[in-house]
Amino acid sequence: MIQNIALVGCGNVGTALLEILNEKRTELSEKHGFIFRVTLISDLMKGTVLDPEGLDLNQIVIDLKEGKNLDSFPKGQGSFGELLAKSRTTMMAEATPTNLKTGEPGITHIRAALSRGIHVTTTNKGPVALAFDELATLAKSCGAKFRYEGVVMSGTPLLHMLQYGMAGCTVLKLEGILNGTTNFILSKMGETGVSYAEALEEAASLGYAEADPTGDVEGWDAAAKVSILAKLLFGKNIPVSDIDRQGITCITPEKIKAAHEHGCTVKLIAGINATNGEFYTYVTPKEISLSHPLASINGPTNAVSILTDNLGEVTLIGPGAGRIETGQALLTDLIAMRKN
Amino acid sequence: MIQNIALVGCGNVGTALLEILNEKRTELSEKHGFIFRVTLISDLMKGTVLDPEGLDLNQIVIDLKEGKNLDSFPKGQGSFGELLAKSRTTMMAEATPTNLKTGEPGITHIRAALSRGIHVTTTNKGPVALAFDELATLAKSCGAKFRYEGVVMSGTPLLHMLQYGMAGCTVLKLEGILNGTTNFILSKMGETGVSYAEALEEAASLGYAEADPTGDVEGWDAAAKVSILAKLLFGKNIPVSDIDRQGITCITPEKIKAAHEHGCTVKLIAGINATNGEFYTYVTPKEISLSHPLASINGPTNAVSILTDNLGEVTLIGPGAGRIETGQALLTDLIAMRKN
Repeated sequence: MIQNIALVGCGNVGTALLEILNEKRTELSEKHGFIFRVTLISDLMKGTVLDPEGLDLNQIVIDLKEGKNLDSFPKGQGSFGELLAKSRTTMMAEATPTNLKTGEPGITHIRAALSRGIHVTTTNKGPVALAFDELATLAKSCGAKFRYEGVVMSGTPLLHMLQYGMAGCTVLKLEGILNGTTNFILSKMGETGVSYAEALEEAASLGYAEADPTGDVEGWDAAAKVSILAKLLFGKNIPVSDIDRQGITCITPEKIKAAHEHGCTVKLIAGINATNGEFYTYVTPKEISLSHPLASINGPTNAVSILTDNLGEVTLIGPGAGRIETGQALLTDLIAMRKN
Repeated sequence: MIQNIALVGCGNVGTALLEILNEKRTELSEKHGFIFRVTLISDLMKGTVLDPEGLDLNQIVIDLKEGKNLDSFPKGQGSFGELLAKSRTTMMAEATPTNLKTGEPGITHIRAALSRGIHVTTTNKGPVALAFDELATLAKSCGAKFRYEGVVMSGTPLLHMLQYGMAGCTVLKLEGILNGTTNFILSKMGETGVSYAEALEEAASLGYAEADPTGDVEGWDAAAKVSILAKLLFGKNIPVSDIDRQGITCITPEKIKAAHEHGCTVKLIAGINATNGEFYTYVTPKEISLSHPLASINGPTNAVSILTDNLGEVTLIGPGAGRIETGQALLTDLIAMRKN
């Protein structure tokens, strides 16, 4: 069966997905039986284009690479629901920007698709953090699938591993490095002895830190991911504001040096502890023994160590961000959702 | 739908699966919709018992814990095919001992089940290493599923992650620590300066090394896993004897100390390199930089770093052996294979 894909949000990640789909068309068909056409692309800046027989993906990728918008392709008109119907979309990739206060416009897009029985994958933390119960229930009642691999650790398959690869195994505790920006800053301070301000400046110059770095350095981004994991793994609703959260602005090169002197290093650790009948969620700078796998995670890489009943400790390390890496998350979900 | 489970081979791993199934019955039903009865258990030493309405799992677990055989349960008689039919088995867990020369008795059991449309999961490296093509083809033609998470890294979900969690992503290179015994020995030598012979003795006393340690210390076990990964990931038939293989018997505490002095440690690395148009498979002691995640893997733990096109490097660390850990691999596969 041919999958008709809609892409909503054609920024860095959405464009990366289109590039991967275009490049791997033959391989996806041969290896995964995944045969597709892209029938709808909708982006606030670049326009809305639609063709139920499949848009010219190759030309779209070329145009986007050249910085063009989507003007030379068949325009789509009408409400979002009408666009989904006209394009005969069977699965949607949602990659609009994250808004952790409202979840919009992601929630509206996802609701529209799921309610029509269209499978959805998103890389947008907002809808998953703020409206998970509603969207998961809607998906179930409409016979649609709802996936979100990219909301934590980009395409590193943490969620897939926890939900499917370790099915039947109970998670007792989880701790990890879930924010690449802060890990880059702490690694830099540890390696070169530069101050927090200098390391932050370098992170910004490399594109790892945003103009306003508060979301990263104060631990809000990591806390949003903890909130999502608490929901997915334990079914708990823990608002981001309820998470015991401390950022890295108070960390000095001297503190890191002192940690090194007793065989440790400092990492911003995000975690959930569900042992001993408690349920504690946190984001805090912590000293980690140099012999622990998390200590060797440097730069923008992410990692999570999961303590379980049947497998003891399992650690997954991989990219935490990146356009292609997050596009890969969408692709993995699209393949998993295909109808045969 | 109720799943009727057959267990063939009721040694350490098979018994662990029964314990987990018995303990988690309610959780498996509520969380995964996995409702089952065990209708057949067949073991060369402990006997063959059968009840299409479901054996008394709770009592079986108690008896096995007390070292009893299965004499007090309804006996099963007839050929293996007849046992599968009488027990109305819908999925089989195969956990007989590995024979890397013949693949038996695993191959015969798996063939019998798949040809009847019965899903199969195995922890037995023999059938996967020696008869993968035949069994995978048979499964497909009979509408049965064939899974084998436990043959590499026990229940650490490496195969699941590579085949599903990273679907659409191309593996370029893979290297890892795939044998716990040799990693325990090398870790011990590095930490305490003891000789290879002393470390081997300790491994044996802890149950990590067998009476004849050749399979582990000469790299045969790791090579069998490389052969399996070459098949699963790249579709290549690489017999174990064709893998460039060197064991750890030549490693001295002095060599490890020398490696430490230039910021490295020595690990027995199993790998596949598929970059630059080559395809090279190997098992060899290698110096690994202390800053690499694989350097921090000590004791019987296993780990694999995978270099990919879209995700860069992804590393998975977890148990490489153990009765409960390998039983968990069977459980994950059983859940994934359930019919709804």
